Amino acid sequence: MAKVKVDLKERGYDILIGSDNLAELGKLVHDQKWGREIFIITDPLVNDLYGDQVRRGFKEQVRTIELQRGERYKNLGEAGKIYDQLVKMKAHRDALIIALGGGVIGDIAGYIAATYMRGINYLQVPTTLLAQVDAAIGGKTGVNHPRGKNLIGCFYQPRGVYIDVATLATLPARELRTGLAEVVKYGVIEDADFFKFLEANAHQLNTRTFESDETKQAAFKLWQTIVLEAAKIKAKIVEKDEKEKGLRMVLNYGHTVGHALESLTRYRTYNHGEAVAVGMVAAALIASKMRMLDGEGVARLVSLLEKLELPTRIEGLPVAKLVNYLGLDKKVKAGRVNFVLPEKLGRVVIRNDVPAAVIRQVLTELGAA
Amino acid sequence: MAKVKVDLKERGYDILIGSDNLAELGKLVHDQKWGREIFIITDPLVNDLYGDQVRRGFKEQVRTIELQRGERYKNLGEAGKIYDQLVKMKAHRDALIIALGGGVIGDIAGYIAATYMRGINYLQVPTTLLAQVDAAIGGKTGVNHPRGKNLIGCFYQPRGVYIDVATLATLPARELRTGLAEVVKYGVIEDADFFKFLEANAHQLNTRTFESDETKQAAFKLWQTIVLEAAKIKAKIVEKDEKEKGLRMVLNYGHTVGHALESLTRYRTYNHGEAVAVGMVAAALIASKMRMLDGEGVARLVSLLEKLELPTRIEGLPVAKLVNYLGLDKKVKAGRVNFVLPEKLGRVVIRNDVPAAVIRQVLTELGAA
Repeated sequence: MAKVKVDLKERGYDILIGSDNLAELGKLVHDQKWGREIFIITDPLVNDLYGDQVRRGFKEQVRTIELQRGERYKNLGEAGKIYDQLVKMKAHRDALIIALGGGVIGDIAGYIAATYMRGINYLQVPTTLLAQVDAAIGGKTGVNHPRGKNLIGCFYQPRGVYIDVATLATLPARELRTGLAEVVKYGVIEDADFFKFLEANAHQLNTRTFESDETKQAAFKLWQTIVLEAAKIKAKIVEKDEKEKGLRMVLNYGHTVGHALESLTRYRTYNHGEAVAVGMVAAALIASKMRMLDGEGVARLVSLLEKLELPTRIEGLPVAKLVNYLGLDKKVKAGRVNFVLPEKLGRVVIRNDVPAAVIRQVLTELGAA
Repeated sequence: MAKVKVDLKERGYDILIGSDNLAELGKLVHDQKWGREIFIITDPLVNDLYGDQVRRGFKEQVRTIELQRGERYKNLGEAGKIYDQLVKMKAHRDALIIALGGGVIGDIAGYIAATYMRGINYLQVPTTLLAQVDAAIGGKTGVNHPRGKNLIGCFYQPRGVYIDVATLATLPARELRTGLAEVVKYGVIEDADFFKFLEANAHQLNTRTFESDETKQAAFKLWQTIVLEAAKIKAKIVEKDEKEKGLRMVLNYGHTVGHALESLTRYRTYNHGEAVAVGMVAAALIASKMRMLDGEGVARLVSLLEKLELPTRIEGLPVAKLVNYLGLDKKVKAGRVNFVLPEKLGRVVIRNDVPAAVIRQVLTELGAA
């Protein structure tokens, strides 16, 4: 297994990345003394696919709490039901929560861990690419409010992130792509070589080659590399700015317009990565109009996203609505909209001086009405 | 104003203690740049008494959110309504919450601050003695679950604790006494001289001498001393064990039996300090039966509590119910009940080996049936 250290002093932990390693988690938890009582929080599908593999590795009693699948269950009401179950099962302070699933599970399970008895141990065991490269790393936890995603939450670091890339074999292609959008993001914000590596491997990344044992092993190896590089970049940024006071905002590259798209289409048209893909193109175009990024950079980004079958255009949304939404964006500080803009592939800056006219022009060019 | 530093590195803050100083809070917040948008969370009574004094000191817009008075409103449902109001008023990440009130307000407002947008700034402005000497210091935040007090919460430190002992002039005598129980606790666990000081001043502490301006000033001076000494002790313990992993448990002296009493009488018979007073006597008697504390120590404790008109006996509760409840106590670690036991006035130890028979005997001696 590969290991990435997230150095946050007494809150630090390791990200462990391997394949077909779920059954070994129990031994690790036992050796590390992470908890005497084990509670897996997962959803019915992931539980069917991987629950037994995880449970098998434990000598301790393991109890499993299922949350219905879907972002709409990531709310305070469902969190309340999970607290009820923990209380009913008499979970104590030395209980360990294992978040087994995608980003929704990781967010709500982390939030439960952060707030149950003022904080108990938890592990992130992400089973989607999006969660493996992004959501599971960095301690962001939370639930949605009717008026905004993740409006209620904490920064609360897990004891560890434990990744089995073999879980990607059961992930629908569209879900894999949404994770790839965030992977591309890391290339743009931090690492031009990694961006090049993605360009060179775009075809394999977008082909599901899990058929034979041989192609499977090759695919797992590629995925391990991708997840490892992404985790390294994310860990480095989180270390420097655990609580998103400044630098960590670069991780929002593509998310300013992306969140607007998701929200205005009520999370039905675009999934997260798709919205971020369009948002990254929007930010790149804004950067180009502000004479920061050259045309080649924009073209390479669009080309890579297209190879990964990620959307690069907005269709059918009114520009006015998008612009209006941006005024309510959570990333607003002191009344101005922050944009993360690439200066070149591998380097971004945060700017809050993008003229509204430029934003409107870019949105129009991208197909907004 | 007197100042006590709570040294928690980047989470550190000051406790400021004065009298008639509420109107100066606005300037401090402004100078410290603690928030651009000010939200006071309080209850209708405290708002009537002190809301204007606080608001008057601010140049910034101040919005006030009222929670109904009483422990039973400290729950997830009410927290949900407060989130709704913050969202509706478009509170951003750089908002500041001011918790103006007693322990209930401090706990829930702190919890809101800890979880709104993954954590915003807040100040504790406690207006009861209990909150001034205990709840407001140390970053414990939370709400109740139907099955347990404070079962849902976070450790989340405020930016500061701002105390005006003049607010004690409007506090009902019984509320003042509940705070005095926690004050006595500090003497027992940490400071024999402070215990002596309380013995010497017991009469004044239990006489409401706020009539004339002169007696008022003398009373405020005494209260400032009391609050300052208590804050010093609490701050020292919190510094050493922010997240209650070990040492901080000494603050639970009197609380093991105390919580059982509160819970079994559904928070109707005893208020918190009264339950803790009985619990402190119970723990002292246990310590004496275990040949740790001498009889004089028990007698001085009982005598001081009686002078302060705090209860020292249990009446009418079945011993069996109390013992059973103790098995469910939150302070249980690995299946055994932790007791904080005095070795002498000013020093306690944590023990998890108290025989059930001793607990039963002490409860019976105290009047349980």
